[in-house]
Amino acid sequence: MATSALRIVRDVAALRAEISAWRKAGRSIGLVPTMGALHEGHLSLVRAAKQKCDRAIATLFVNPRQFAPHEDFDRYPRNEEQDAALLASAGCDLLYAPDRSVMYPEGFATNVIVSDVSTPLEGEFRPHFFGGVATVVTKLLLQALPDAAFFGEKDYQQLQVIKRMARDLDIPAEIVGCATVRESDGLAMSSRNAYLKPDERRIAARLNHVLHDAIKAAHQGEAIAAVEAEANRHLIAAGFSSVDYVAIRDAETLAIVANLSRPARILAAAWLGKTRLIDNMAV
Amino acid sequence: MATSALRIVRDVAALRAEISAWRKAGRSIGLVPTMGALHEGHLSLVRAAKQKCDRAIATLFVNPRQFAPHEDFDRYPRNEEQDAALLASAGCDLLYAPDRSVMYPEGFATNVIVSDVSTPLEGEFRPHFFGGVATVVTKLLLQALPDAAFFGEKDYQQLQVIKRMARDLDIPAEIVGCATVRESDGLAMSSRNAYLKPDERRIAARLNHVLHDAIKAAHQGEAIAAVEAEANRHLIAAGFSSVDYVAIRDAETLAIVANLSRPARILAAAWLGKTRLIDNMAV
Repeated sequence: MATSALRIVRDVAALRAEISAWRKAGRSIGLVPTMGALHEGHLSLVRAAKQKCDRAIATLFVNPRQFAPHEDFDRYPRNEEQDAALLASAGCDLLYAPDRSVMYPEGFATNVIVSDVSTPLEGEFRPHFFGGVATVVTKLLLQALPDAAFFGEKDYQQLQVIKRMARDLDIPAEIVGCATVRESDGLAMSSRNAYLKPDERRIAARLNHVLHDAIKAAHQGEAIAAVEAEANRHLIAAGFSSVDYVAIRDAETLAIVANLSRPARILAAAWLGKTRLIDNMAV
Repeated sequence: MATSALRIVRDVAALRAEISAWRKAGRSIGLVPTMGALHEGHLSLVRAAKQKCDRAIATLFVNPRQFAPHEDFDRYPRNEEQDAALLASAGCDLLYAPDRSVMYPEGFATNVIVSDVSTPLEGEFRPHFFGGVATVVTKLLLQALPDAAFFGEKDYQQLQVIKRMARDLDIPAEIVGCATVRESDGLAMSSRNAYLKPDERRIAARLNHVLHDAIKAAHQGEAIAAVEAEANRHLIAAGFSSVDYVAIRDAETLAIVANLSRPARILAAAWLGKTRLIDNMAV
């Protein structure tokens, strides 16, 4: 792989200096926050940023505050050199890769907490997750002050939490959600797919098919609770070790819905051995 | 009183349009957040903003989220017309006076929480206070994106909370603390002084003298706990109904200190009837 020509900055002053020069030249800025271990899903966000804005900045920071102590922070895949090369190939203009002391200096004491939309589903199974996400995304948005920031619909509830937070705090950036990118068999691309053993990888592809079938059943008028219970059974039958949730919810608030009179979303989280996969689709 | 020529805006779009025009002309912006009921203390912040920045914007919003249900939100003094005239006389260039639906639209769900520095003292006696303050000040700072924002040292712990929050969230504005303005007898100016009956007003002036005496005793080597206890007794003897706290603390973190080896601050909160007064001084 050729050496990446992508410029990398590692602190807020250097990031702001690059952006300030672009601003003076009248350029608009798109931001793509990532935790690295990049795949085609991330690169599609960079391309979306370049389509909407003159310059695209990717950020790479594996945020310790959104992992619980028992979660996979230590083994989360890291390969900055390869990530930088991929970003350059997708047209990214700058990589911002701060280390922990830049993001959380000594004495750090502030948390951004979003209630309501962050409470159910992921919020129930990963209680610290959205607090960590909302805080780090607020910081990244205020460090860069982009015109727009791009997030994948793969993390659908996270996208809704970030939209709520940005609106509530008056962060002057548009939050743009981008469609989930999938493998040819339908598996949603995820950095955590790298954990899957070959037999787990085959089962993983069933997740989005089960959600498809559930959507079909819901549209045929089956009761929502029955659809959810059936999808849960199908996942276990397909070989998933356990299911955290399969749920049809309001597409904006993630609140429980009784019917499909408003836009809804089906969301799921399920385990294959030690690997937790999530997926979601418009109902 | 002559009609004020001060321009008033009431929503974020109008505020940003004014600021954007100033930015294009190369002007720097200073922000002075207030809850109205303005006195010489607030006007000194406007003058400080005008000294440091080309344009000064005052905000007027009585923030319901920093009052507990039993506190004085409903009776908090409000007089926008008089406030606008005072601001104009101090050289203020714009008043931003949003109403509640602008600041907290339906579905609002985000809170900025600062731990550590917000925990003791005011945080103990007004548990919701600093969450409300940190959230509204984050919003005001992100709505206006000023170069600097000006806060009185009268609310000293609040100033430290806001500094911590702005640093932690990478809000791109300098937080400037300005000296407390006092009446001729030493009483710190406060919108809540308007609540005091004449006999209470006479007793109120003793607060800063008791703090002065405590500082003197601390410098003479008296133990900090003894100084605090003595000041507490002196306030009650002077006629205060009760004392929430008198405490000598670290000047930045508000942590308990064993001695005066680092910069320290004495802070007090005490009641006169239904009115709660606070004051503080460098030790």
